[in-house]
Parts: sequence; C-alpha cells; structure tokens
Amino acid sequence: MSLDSKLSQLLGTLGWLTGPDDTAPYVRDWLDRYGVQPIGVARPANTQEVSDVIRVCSEAGTIVVPQGGGTGLVGGSVASNPNSVILSLSRMAKIEEIDESDFTVIVEAGVVLARLHEQLQAQNLAFPLHLGSEGSAQIGGLIATNAGGSHAFRYGCMMDLVLGLEVVLPNGEIWNGMRRLIKDNSGFQLRKLFCGSEGRLGVVTRAALRLYPAPRSRATALIAVPDINAMMVAGNALRRSCGEMLVAMEFFDDAILDLSLSKIPDLSWPMESRAAYYLLVELSTSIASLNLDTVLENLLEPVFEDGLAIDAIVAQSEAQRAALWRIREELPEGTLREGRQIKHDIAVPISQIPAFLADCAPKVQAVLNGTRIWTFGHLADGNIHYNLSPPRETTDFADLDAEISAVIYATAESHGGTFAAEHGVGRSKRAIAETLRSPVERHLMVQVQKSLDSRNLMNEGVITSSANTNMASRL
Amino acid sequence: MSLDSKLSQLLGTLGWLTGPDDTAPYVRDWLDRYGVQPIGVARPANTQEVSDVIRVCSEAGTIVVPQGGGTGLVGGSVASNPNSVILSLSRMAKIEEIDESDFTVIVEAGVVLARLHEQLQAQNLAFPLHLGSEGSAQIGGLIATNAGGSHAFRYGCMMDLVLGLEVVLPNGEIWNGMRRLIKDNSGFQLRKLFCGSEGRLGVVTRAALRLYPAPRSRATALIAVPDINAMMVAGNALRRSCGEMLVAMEFFDDAILDLSLSKIPDLSWPMESRAAYYLLVELSTSIASLNLDTVLENLLEPVFEDGLAIDAIVAQSEAQRAALWRIREELPEGTLREGRQIKHDIAVPISQIPAFLADCAPKVQAVLNGTRIWTFGHLADGNIHYNLSPPRETTDFADLDAEISAVIYATAESHGGTFAAEHGVGRSKRAIAETLRSPVERHLMVQVQKSLDSRNLMNEGVITSSANTNMASRL
Repeated sequence: MSLDSKLSQLLGTLGWLTGPDDTAPYVRDWLDRYGVQPIGVARPANTQEVSDVIRVCSEAGTIVVPQGGGTGLVGGSVASNPNSVILSLSRMAKIEEIDESDFTVIVEAGVVLARLHEQLQAQNLAFPLHLGSEGSAQIGGLIATNAGGSHAFRYGCMMDLVLGLEVVLPNGEIWNGMRRLIKDNSGFQLRKLFCGSEGRLGVVTRAALRLYPAPRSRATALIAVPDINAMMVAGNALRRSCGEMLVAMEFFDDAILDLSLSKIPDLSWPMESRAAYYLLVELSTSIASLNLDTVLENLLEPVFEDGLAIDAIVAQSEAQRAALWRIREELPEGTLREGRQIKHDIAVPISQIPAFLADCAPKVQAVLNGTRIWTFGHLADGNIHYNLSPPRETTDFADLDAEISAVIYATAESHGGTFAAEHGVGRSKRAIAETLRSPVERHLMVQVQKSLDSRNLMNEGVITSSANTNMASRL
Repeated sequence: MSLDSKLSQLLGTLGWLTGPDDTAPYVRDWLDRYGVQPIGVARPANTQEVSDVIRVCSEAGTIVVPQGGGTGLVGGSVASNPNSVILSLSRMAKIEEIDESDFTVIVEAGVVLARLHEQLQAQNLAFPLHLGSEGSAQIGGLIATNAGGSHAFRYGCMMDLVLGLEVVLPNGEIWNGMRRLIKDNSGFQLRKLFCGSEGRLGVVTRAALRLYPAPRSRATALIAVPDINAMMVAGNALRRSCGEMLVAMEFFDDAILDLSLSKIPDLSWPMESRAAYYLLVELSTSIASLNLDTVLENLLEPVFEDGLAIDAIVAQSEAQRAALWRIREELPEGTLREGRQIKHDIAVPISQIPAFLADCAPKVQAVLNGTRIWTFGHLADGNIHYNLSPPRETTDFADLDAEISAVIYATAESHGGTFAAEHGVGRSKRAIAETLRSPVERHLMVQVQKSLDSRNLMNEGVITSSANTNMASRL
C-alpha cells in the first residue's frame, strides 16, 4: 500500500490532505520564502495518530516536517524536499487542565498562545510568554523553537516555562515526560533538550507549563534618551533599582520610529521631544496594594537627575499603556510597508550593544552602501532585531542579501553574541550555523541528533546537517 | 608508561595524589556510604589539564569520576570501581569576571558557592542559589547535579541560572559553550543537557552564570498552621498575593521541630504556640524604598481572618530573621543527632502533598512498624525531604532500608512525583531509577549517553546503566 493510502486510511479526510488546493495553507512559510509541495499534510487528532504517522513515514523513508502555527521566521516548519509529509498539530488544541494550586496547565501542542492567555485571565493566572505572533503561534511550535519575547528576561524563554513534555520520537515511540515539577533530577534533562530542537529530535504533542499569579498592578513608561550610552546607563540603573518588578525593557532608535510614524498614519507619538533612542519600561506586580505608578516615577527621578533622559511619559490609563506598547509593536509593520527587507534576530551581551552597533553599521555599508538599518529589540537580554531596507530609490539588495547577513552574524559572534537569539535556526540559518559553530559543537549536535534519529528523517535540513560533518576524522 | 606515571608527569605532585593517606579526603562520600579506593586523585589546574587527564584515562580504559565539593547525598562523586581516577576540580577556583552591566559572572568549576556569594555582595549583586551546603559545594558540582535549594521556585534551579558552559567531553575535546546570553537558539540546548548530567556526559570546567540585583529589603515570617489542609490553602493564598516578591516558602511538621529542639539545646522557639505544621515565608525586593514588613503583615491578615493560621511572627531585625532561618536549617542536624536515618528527597505536584503524606505513612509503617517520619521541605515547589529514624529503642531499620525507600519512591511516582527532586540520582538511586523509569525513557537516556561516551567511561554507574537496557530488542 502506498504512503498516501496508508495515511488516508489512518487519518481520514479531515486528517490527511493532498493536492495543491487543500495543502496550500500549510506549504509556504510566514515570509513566503520557503516551502516546496509535500506529499501531503497530516493533521492527526491525538498522540497515537502522531505516532502512527511517524511510523508510517519512517517505514517509507519519508521526511516528517512538524508544523505549529506557522509564524516562524526561519523556514523551520515547511518542506525543503518533496519527499516530505507536513505534520500539523492544529487539530490537537485542547487546554486539558488548569491547576490553580499547582500553578500548572496541561495543553495539547496545537493550542494557540493567545487562547491560553484568555483562558487563564479568567482565573487570575498568567502564562508569561508574550510575543507579536501570539494570535497564531501554537504551544508546540513555541516549545520547538524555544520562543522568547519581551518578558523573557524576567520569566525565561519557553524552555524555562516547560515543566513536562510528551514527545513522539523519530521511531514513533511516545515518551511520557509529563511531570509537573519544578525540581526533577531523576536523570538527564530530556525536556530541556527537546525545547528548541525545532522538530529535529521528535514532535512535541503535549506539555505541562508553569503558571504565575496574574499581575494586579502595572506601570509603563516611555523614556527618550539622548544617546546610546545614556540608554545603556539608564537601562542598567533601572534594572538594578526595579529588580524583580521589571517585566519588560524594550528599546528602539529614532530611525525606525520615524519610518513607522510615516508609514502607519494612525500611529501617534505622545511626546513633544524626539531623541536618538527610546526605552519602553514596564513594571508589574501581583501585590494589588502597591501603587506602581508612584514607584516607577520615583525610580525615574535619579535617571533624570543624572542627565540620562530627555523626556518620559508614565502611562496614566490602560488605554495609554496600550498606545505606548502599540508604538513598539508596530515597528516591524513600518519596515514591512517600506518594501523588501532583511531581518536579523541576533543577541549580544548587554554591555556589547553599543560596540556591536558601532562596529556593524560600517561593515554593512561596505557591502552595500546606503543600506538603511533599523534597530530595535529587548535591552535587558541583549536581543536586537537588526533589520534592513535597501538603499533609498532601490527595491532590493542587489543580490547581496546573503553577504550582508553573513557580515552581521559574524559581527554578533565576534562580540560574544549569537546569530540566532529567539527565532531559531530553521532552514534559513542552517548554512551560516554550520560555518559559525566550532567543529566540536557541530559534531556534538550531530551526535545527539543521530542518537535519536539515525536515518535523519525528522525535519531534515533544520538546525544541523549530518552530511557537513566529517564523522570519520573525529571518532 | 603506566597511567600512574603518565598522570604524575602531566600533573606534578600537587596535581596527582595516590595512596590511601593523600587520597583519603576524596575517597568517601559525604554520608560515608560510597567510595572504593581509586587509582588516584587528579587535581588539574586548568581546562587543558582536565582534557589531558580524560584523554589519558580514556586510552587506558579507566573510569573518570568528576568531583566537586563532595557534598552530594547520592554517592555520585566517588568511585564504585577501583579502576577509576577521581577528577577533583578544587584547584580551579577562580572567579574570573563579574560583569555589572551584563549581570553575569564567569567562574571556574571549583569555586565554592559561599565565596561567590561573598564576592558579589560587595557589588550589590546576587547569585540566587541558596542551600545548606553552600560553604563547601562547588559551582561545577552544583551544575552537574542541577542543584535547587530554597529559592528555586523564584529563580529556578542551577540549569536555569547557567548561561554558558565550558565542558570537557568524554573524548577529551573541549566544548566552548561560554556565551552569556539569555536568548540563544543557535542549535540544540546543549548547555541544559549537561546541567544535571552528574558528570556522565562530560566535565564542567567553567561557567557563565546569571546574576540578579541584590535584594535591598526583606521580610520573613514564621507561621503556625492548625493542620496540613490549612497549610496548603494558606500557602496557595500567599503565593498568589505575594507574587514575584515571594522568595522562599519552607514547611516543616511539629514532629521534626520537636526532635530538633530536644537535640539542639541552644535552638530556641520564638512562639508561645505549637501547631501541626509551620511555614517559613520570605519576601524580598530590590526596590529599596518598599517597606516589606508592612506588606507582609498586610498579606498575612486575610490568612488569619480565614482561620488558616494560629500564630505568626514577622522578624523585626536581621538577628531575628537569622534565628527563624536557623530553626529551618537545623532540622537535618536534629535527625542526624538522633542516630541512623534514611533520607528521601522527593517531589510531588504541590496539590498532592497532603495525599502523598497520608498515603505514604501507613505504607512505611507496614514495612517497619514504629518507623519515625520527619517531614520538611519547600512548599512552593512540592519538594519534600522525607526522612526517617528507626522505631524508638532501636538503632537501625532491621535491614529493611531498601524496601522502605522503594515504597516511598513508588508512592511519590504514583502521585505524579519524582524519586529524585534536588539531590539527583548518583549511585544510590540508580537501581530504583531503572525500575521506575519507563522503558522509552530508559532507552532515551542510554542513547544520549552512548552518543557522547560509547565506551561508558565517564562516571560509569551514575544515572543510567547501559547494561540494563536491552538495546537489541529496541532497534
């Protein structure tokens, strides 16, 4: 029996899609850069069906490409080889159990993050992962990519919020690692290994996630700073003074603000001043009686006294808070409306941000003069979204895209940073990953990958390519 | 040349110890239950020497047993096979770099935790891992065992605090994973995999750790509660109301308090009341201006109004705070002075604590009637130190130790818990681990271990035994 017939029989018409029309929503990635037509799209309804799909594909020597909400930016969840089956988890979308005394929730992999947020709000609990794509991103994909977002420096990335996992392994076996414990040293930390493995080591089907009491009080400020050094000193001072209450510290430069304001007509700027850089700072607490606006205003005073800020606004209402956040969240939309762009998600140690920016800009200009650089990101974890538009009056990067990106990634590395901060490696960064990783690290990753999937069928082409490592010379 | 001569030549007299006298401090474990005489003790001075030792031992087919401060309770850092070399990291004890703007510190593996705390205090920074053995425990061992402690539920276990690692692999290669980034998704999360691997996958030689602003204000309360259900409800309510400020929530029962007070004459009890259970709750903040005593007193009010507490003391001075903590910290000493004991470090989901305790006690009594059970632990992460003394008028457990422990571990498992919470598996729990892990999990751990150490020479006998898995039937 053909693979097609087997999967059709196994999954029924709801669960097995073939042909360009039915599979269309699953075939291309978010940025429409990756994805060839696969054999079909499997949409299993439960863990056993996921296991069955993987076994059947394994027998047929067919690649399995797990797919969540499809909001990834590195092409990790679409096929690069026609001999692939896309495995969509979207039908497995139950929020199974919210436990108010354990501060845990058990979810299937296909649950959309925003829906989980909604559900928890009613119970005054919070799952503290927040990112722009939360309206579509699914828990399984967020785990597989170890998603970060704006609150990561306080609550951690996805791997820090995952207590338990159920994973279908490359051989179809189901690993039940669904304990809901903060302390569990009963062996190797397999849960953490699967987080961020981008479907290369198995498919996450269920998870036990850690919850927190919902914040009862918030304070949000937008701060204009005269230059990057003032921003660094102010950021550091606020981090120390705000301590555990600090939940977000976003930054952006005036160039990207200017672009967004010009491209998005209904976006309004609430200050009289403009400055070189801006910080968006938020505090939150679960202690209802604390007046955080006063706390934040007091903590901002020394920042002004030290000449580190030109202007600041503390949101006076929930609407104003939302308006401040919208300025930050629309920044990617601004660059999108400017036309063709290249996005780079890098991180450097916080103290290296100014040196990285000063070092990188001329290198980019040396490759393509006039390239416009937009800088924004998460100051408290050194995560910079370093995005580019082509020179004015041009519509593309003169085929220098790869060369420009390589320069940026190498510069991040040279400052102790990473070419992949919160968006992962996927297909788009695999080649650069292989060149930037040390031989020891490259080999380590291949060893781990091969130990679980010797036939290299799980999401082949993502993170690591076994072909690129000369095993013989290293054993 | 013999292994002895090679290591002697490589490491010199300071770095290579042989003979029962010189090696004596390294041979037996903390509880004096494990450890045979090894070939010798290697004390390398740097990472290259660690690599050399591992290569030389690998060539000779000799087991390498990494050792930190030797405070482990599961026999993980001493030899069980005479054909072993103990690899002590204690000479590698440099605090290399504290970075105040990155909130990171780079340390060698042999740095003692308490020394790191001291050093950081001077700069108003904190490394938030706290446990009883911090005066001897070394960073490398704490990483290898993924140590937890009393602050883990707020700041995470060791693996959550490790940003970067340098590891010498079983083949002697040095992996430099020393990035200092909160967000780094440039491949598999190898750092996390090495955390808690108990020396089985390699030897940690250096680490980049995450720091936090030092707390500027603290409030500590001891609360007497009428029964375990009141304790659970009070704990849950305080966790919600105290939110991000809650830094510790310890609990203990009246039996172990009574024992400690009788065994440790200078320990004094600060309340008029005695009760079934006690909670030790601590809040902390980096915001200097907040008066946490008032905050905590206000948050305790509803607890009393709901009849969940009989009495409470909020520490009025640093000395009183220390005195309250001393009561908690001396609990293990009380049971130690009572003579022979069996310690169990288990965890269950928080909500399962009462059911676990109610279920387990009669099962223990059924094995050995009259066994005295002492219960204390970390309420906010469900981690229970379930320790036993023999029946009154007896000095041992009538050779039923293993049977009693097996019952306790199985009961923890049956409540969704773990047989190894914060102390790891080591040698003492390996056999029980093999019986309690699912076949899929057992096999997964062996696959990962073999992928890095096919000859099974790194800390052989710890966590997993490849001999116990029938590979043939599973491939």
